[in-house]
Amino acid sequence: MFTLIKKEGSARRGKMDTVHGTIQTPAFMNVGTSAAIKGGISSFDLVDLKCQVELCNTYHLHVRPGDDVIQAMGGLHKFMGWKKPILTDSGGFQVFSLAKLRKIKEEGVFFQSHVDGKRIFMGPEQSMQIQSHLASTIAMAFDECIENPAPYDYTLKSIQRTTRWLARCKAEMNRLNSLEDTINPHQLLFGINQGSTYKDLRIQHMQEIVQMELDGYAIGGLAVGETAEEMYEIIEAVEPYAPADKIRYLMGVGTPVNIIEGVYRGIDLFDCVMPSRNARHGTLFTWSGIININNAKYLTDSSPLDSQCDCPVCQNHSRAYLRHLFRANEMLAMRLGVMHNLYFYNTLMEKIRDALDNNTFEEFRRHWVPILSKRI
Amino acid sequence: MFTLIKKEGSARRGKMDTVHGTIQTPAFMNVGTSAAIKGGISSFDLVDLKCQVELCNTYHLHVRPGDDVIQAMGGLHKFMGWKKPILTDSGGFQVFSLAKLRKIKEEGVFFQSHVDGKRIFMGPEQSMQIQSHLASTIAMAFDECIENPAPYDYTLKSIQRTTRWLARCKAEMNRLNSLEDTINPHQLLFGINQGSTYKDLRIQHMQEIVQMELDGYAIGGLAVGETAEEMYEIIEAVEPYAPADKIRYLMGVGTPVNIIEGVYRGIDLFDCVMPSRNARHGTLFTWSGIININNAKYLTDSSPLDSQCDCPVCQNHSRAYLRHLFRANEMLAMRLGVMHNLYFYNTLMEKIRDALDNNTFEEFRRHWVPILSKRI
Repeated sequence: MFTLIKKEGSARRGKMDTVHGTIQTPAFMNVGTSAAIKGGISSFDLVDLKCQVELCNTYHLHVRPGDDVIQAMGGLHKFMGWKKPILTDSGGFQVFSLAKLRKIKEEGVFFQSHVDGKRIFMGPEQSMQIQSHLASTIAMAFDECIENPAPYDYTLKSIQRTTRWLARCKAEMNRLNSLEDTINPHQLLFGINQGSTYKDLRIQHMQEIVQMELDGYAIGGLAVGETAEEMYEIIEAVEPYAPADKIRYLMGVGTPVNIIEGVYRGIDLFDCVMPSRNARHGTLFTWSGIININNAKYLTDSSPLDSQCDCPVCQNHSRAYLRHLFRANEMLAMRLGVMHNLYFYNTLMEKIRDALDNNTFEEFRRHWVPILSKRI
Repeated sequence: MFTLIKKEGSARRGKMDTVHGTIQTPAFMNVGTSAAIKGGISSFDLVDLKCQVELCNTYHLHVRPGDDVIQAMGGLHKFMGWKKPILTDSGGFQVFSLAKLRKIKEEGVFFQSHVDGKRIFMGPEQSMQIQSHLASTIAMAFDECIENPAPYDYTLKSIQRTTRWLARCKAEMNRLNSLEDTINPHQLLFGINQGSTYKDLRIQHMQEIVQMELDGYAIGGLAVGETAEEMYEIIEAVEPYAPADKIRYLMGVGTPVNIIEGVYRGIDLFDCVMPSRNARHGTLFTWSGIININNAKYLTDSSPLDSQCDCPVCQNHSRAYLRHLFRANEMLAMRLGVMHNLYFYNTLMEKIRDALDNNTFEEFRRHWVPILSKRI
């Protein structure tokens, strides 16, 4: 259950109570696609990195090792050794971005596994069943992730189908949560707003899905090629139609600045592979700006990556050592980079919450947006 | 300085005091080639894995990032964040195994870097200078690592040159240790016994290098293709000629059984990439035998990798989860595998020392050799 604690403009400070503990919002979810954070980070490391919620991908886990395997192991929490909340996506995004030869019908989507080419069918019921097997804290509704740009007519038909799919998701989730052998009978369901870059369709769709009284509402299908300005405009358009007493999740976003701007526009929850993916290539976020640690200027730099950071990497290692590890293609480079970037993101959210608590978020935004977007 | 505490047959329980702390022997050195353990293990992790000595490779560090860089950073200990003893090899083995277009002369070896093809010259003086820059606890003498098999005549000429090189190493190390700006003026020097598989040459060479009163003696050029039996015979032949009051290091060895058999024949110190390399492919050592965690039988096995192991991996993760990580090519698979195998090796040495302390090593050997060599 979500509680809105206070507001500063549209920005919201809240908390979400779940059977796996409370999420203080705004929060950033750390992406562990295949039940592991890429870069060699375990669930036990995540605790030290101040992670509140881990996000796992339904499609990947369905394909490998199989949600039946994870169900047999007692669900994702036991399987990964992570006790705090887990959100699973619906598989929809991956079906539309990764899988081959997909075919959309009213029942759902036929497609081929990207791993072994196996024919798979996934519809609202299958997605809910898989997520129920995974036993995440929060399940996401199965939606169509529309390509950008998309024709208006196609988008209209697609959001109407996504609404029908959402009703089926809700019915199936209710059924699954009432079964005796369901691992997490308190699994929550979030709906997903779609509508491409058409504000009227976005609003129409949000108005429809709000009727269904879900546990939270996500804005999906953004950060897929449109400009940041377009994205912010859509958030601004749709935000007034999202219920104030429910958590709001902006899917797949984004840079530190995107997150600050999202919070500014009323978003509570974020996820993105950016901090871990960038880290694996040596692009590291600091409180002075963005660093490429491969740069020759760090060859004999004995200072920590970020002297304002108290993460395990900045406490123990120099820029020179990190640079060496990246140049030598050592796996340790990626691990240390990902650890730092996730810690940075989780600390960013902590600072945002502190600013909201102190009514200084507008000042926080003015101060940090220019610094955090700078490459140094 | 080495102290022989007690013996059981030829097996020796000892300790080696250094400026970076005491090494309890028999000991296994954990290989961090490029100033990092492959598999994403940091120096800080190594402490938890009961590592006593980290081994780094002179050739790799000379080529990248450059020993001048590490010298500027205050030496390897500061660079990696590792406070306990470090042994650096001489670069000889890599020059003979990795580098291209090498040419051996009396002065040393001309060769090309395997990274960028750069022409490099390395002789005894250069190897000592590089190792002095790295400021390891123990430096290894620069020797020729003879191919196996090698003609008798060539081997004889080669060990004579290696002896002349050793005298130059010792003189240069003495000079370097007396310089004012040397980071570790207490750097120790170990000589290396060569002689291919010819027992008479092995003995002759050992007798020669023992005259030079070095801090320790290594047996090199083994585990390069000969059978384990041949290797054991050479150790047995040369062991009586190694001074009893100096530490003895069998280079590049080996399996858990090789190590037990080495200790049985009077060896104090070992190193090998096997535990970390095997781990990265899912071959994991347990107290019941050798496991390939990729095996389908572990798909839903909720038991720890080794119920007799108290390493961080066995305490926190199931075989099913480890198998999944390996199948999904997650970096975390390699990290957890390497952590376990290094912990296993370091614990094996601890158990060997305990057995020697209790005069039960012969019983230990009889009990564990058949178990540890078994694939289960």
